[in-house]
Amino acid sequence: MPNEKCPPRIITLLTDFGLQDGFVGVMKGVIAGIAPEARVVDISHDIPPQNIRSAAFLLGASYRFFPRQSIHVVVVDPGVGSDRRGLLVCSKEHYFIGPDNGVLSPILEGALVLSIENPHYRLKWVSATFHGRDIFAPAAAHLAQGCDLDGFGPEISDPIRIVFPEPAATENGIEGEIVYIDRFGNLVTNLTTSHIFPAMETSQGVAVLEDGSEWPLRRTYSEVAAGKPCAVPGGFPALHALLLKSAGK
Amino acid sequence: MPNEKCPPRIITLLTDFGLQDGFVGVMKGVIAGIAPEARVVDISHDIPPQNIRSAAFLLGASYRFFPRQSIHVVVVDPGVGSDRRGLLVCSKEHYFIGPDNGVLSPILEGALVLSIENPHYRLKWVSATFHGRDIFAPAAAHLAQGCDLDGFGPEISDPIRIVFPEPAATENGIEGEIVYIDRFGNLVTNLTTSHIFPAMETSQGVAVLEDGSEWPLRRTYSEVAAGKPCAVPGGFPALHALLLKSAGK
Amino acid sequence: MPNEKCPPRIITLLTDFGLQDGFVGVMKGVIAGIAPEARVVDISHDIPPQNIRSAAFLLGASYRFFPRQSIHVVVVDPGVGSDRRGLLVCSKEHYFIGPDNGVLSPILEGALVLSIENPHYRLKWVSATFHGRDIFAPAAAHLAQGCDLDGFGPEISDPIRIVFPEPAATENGIEGEIVYIDRFGNLVTNLTTSHIFPAMETSQGVAVLEDGSEWPLRRTYSEVAAGKPCAVPGGFPALHALLLKSAGK
Repeated sequence: MPNEKCPPRIITLLTDFGLQDGFVGVMKGVIAGIAPEARVVDISHDIPPQNIRSAAFLLGASYRFFPRQSIHVVVVDPGVGSDRRGLLVCSKEHYFIGPDNGVLSPILEGALVLSIENPHYRLKWVSATFHGRDIFAPAAAHLAQGCDLDGFGPEISDPIRIVFPEPAATENGIEGEIVYIDRFGNLVTNLTTSHIFPAMETSQGVAVLEDGSEWPLRRTYSEVAAGKPCAVPGGFPALHALLLKSAGK
Repeated sequence: MPNEKCPPRIITLLTDFGLQDGFVGVMKGVIAGIAPEARVVDISHDIPPQNIRSAAFLLGASYRFFPRQSIHVVVVDPGVGSDRRGLLVCSKEHYFIGPDNGVLSPILEGALVLSIENPHYRLKWVSATFHGRDIFAPAAAHLAQGCDLDGFGPEISDPIRIVFPEPAATENGIEGEIVYIDRFGNLVTNLTTSHIFPAMETSQGVAVLEDGSEWPLRRTYSEVAAGKPCAVPGGFPALHALLLKSAGK
Repeated sequence: MPNEKCPPRIITLLTDFGLQDGFVGVMKGVIAGIAPEARVVDISHDIPPQNIRSAAFLLGASYRFFPRQSIHVVVVDPGVGSDRRGLLVCSKEHYFIGPDNGVLSPILEGALVLSIENPHYRLKWVSATFHGRDIFAPAAAHLAQGCDLDGFGPEISDPIRIVFPEPAATENGIEGEIVYIDRFGNLVTNLTTSHIFPAMETSQGVAVLEDGSEWPLRRTYSEVAAGKPCAVPGGFPALHALLLKSAGK
């Protein structure tokens, strides 16, 4: 459990709100009114609308690069306004806030999970369509101010979990899945460096796509000619390692 | 009038500049050079180019979620470089800065309106194409530093105002207008909760679109099947209340 | 050389990462972990993928609007993971960090150029695909904390330079080139105010495009009818001055 005496200061935002309609801006306004010293950092607001799985993937891939005690707010929330719960999850080093719909799955293991129910930690007027502003942003801001965890609501043991696919050993190697496609067109798989490095060391490893095409395994994009596809260990350490297109970042 | 002894610290930006060309970044650079402690928050930079009405709508819907004494800079400015005035508007709780073209209409009522004319509160070299950087950002930064309001320029009484449509009572109910479409496809109308709540309580209210289609009035998106359209009280309190598509935010 | 006793505080980011995948967010997380007080400002993350020339243009056009001692991180990096060097460039008033591929060309003149090699100023685990996060963001953050310049690595004298086109005098006037197109559709040329102002004063100057069309030279967009093209001195002072479309900013 993080030390509550030293309040966390960084609040990250990960949503499917886009940037055009001011939704993210007003969340920051609400935070600034409650926690003027908190620093807000955007992870992404371009999650495909209502795509809980993509948001969960990006959360798992991103949060560890932030300082301990950071508060990560994730709002991809098709059930907003229903009786789905709002969660505050306290892991060993970070806090997470968002709807109870699986979007927080990657960080639930071994964490304390609270249902956010205290009306003092939300706006006075709560809409049925925008809990990011009315409930989750205020909860994050109050937490950044150092309020007690107990105050948020009761501990729960049954948060909704999404199961992510695991790579499987086959006759010819290891079978993985594409779990994310980034804006460069990189195909991110669920194969980790521990799956790939042995194959790379023998120099015989190839990535075989579903359509039968074979892509060489390389250490960097620059080892193949520009525009040629290859598979390289990616930038998400010990998490998702295979990128199937020559693009560079 | 806000208390000038306690200088405001938050500066929001609302423009049609987009994010790709660095225009917003240099505005923040200019602000940082004058007011290093000010916090800058983006409301939106994706207003459709030169669409004064959309910017005015978003300003009216957003500013109240920011702390008192915030400074809101709005730059949608087709007349840049002409003799159109630049305005500093001081309402009871917030400041607003932008061109005199109607974009500040929603907050003019009862406010002090000044014409920004003092050359000390702008960059030394003022271009004919980018007053957001050369005039409005510096004005906001000097204001954030606590300078006197008098210094900006003379009070004026004839700022340009846009008239927004009002809902009208008809034989069959209330006729409103769609005033904004958000990135989820939500159709935002000028009907407020006071128009809608009576109809919702009788359970007989429906929203009838121009093409004759009828959408049920619901309290939340989750009361209809996924993908089915409905009308719900929206997230802009006491302002714009009807959202005509099942999307959630 | 900037005074190292007063550590710089503003870090700008200019990349081709886009905002959807969280790459920029994790760079900010890394910076916050090393330099909690640094302020990060985005210049743009929408450089066309791997377009070194566009990034160099925007860097040259933007950095001077930031306070002295700002640290500008530029990551457009097709050669990531190869043996291309990483650079720290110290000009009289600003710092610049990025790959040695020409993207820092506009600010190399007369500057001290160091090769970033010290493993203490990077993340422990350095990927082959994301040096923005693993090397450049940490370097900027350590610099913001006031570390010694010597510590980064050896001075070098042969950074890669891109040559930008220069306007040429012809029989009929001055021939320039379009070097950037902004999101309004403004065509930005390499003609500066010193080229244009003489022609404007005689009222006879016109901009002739490659297709033979002639656009009048005007001081502001508002001098022509809405939608009509014209050429005006642009918002990039003493740098790129001709904008060839009526758009306003």
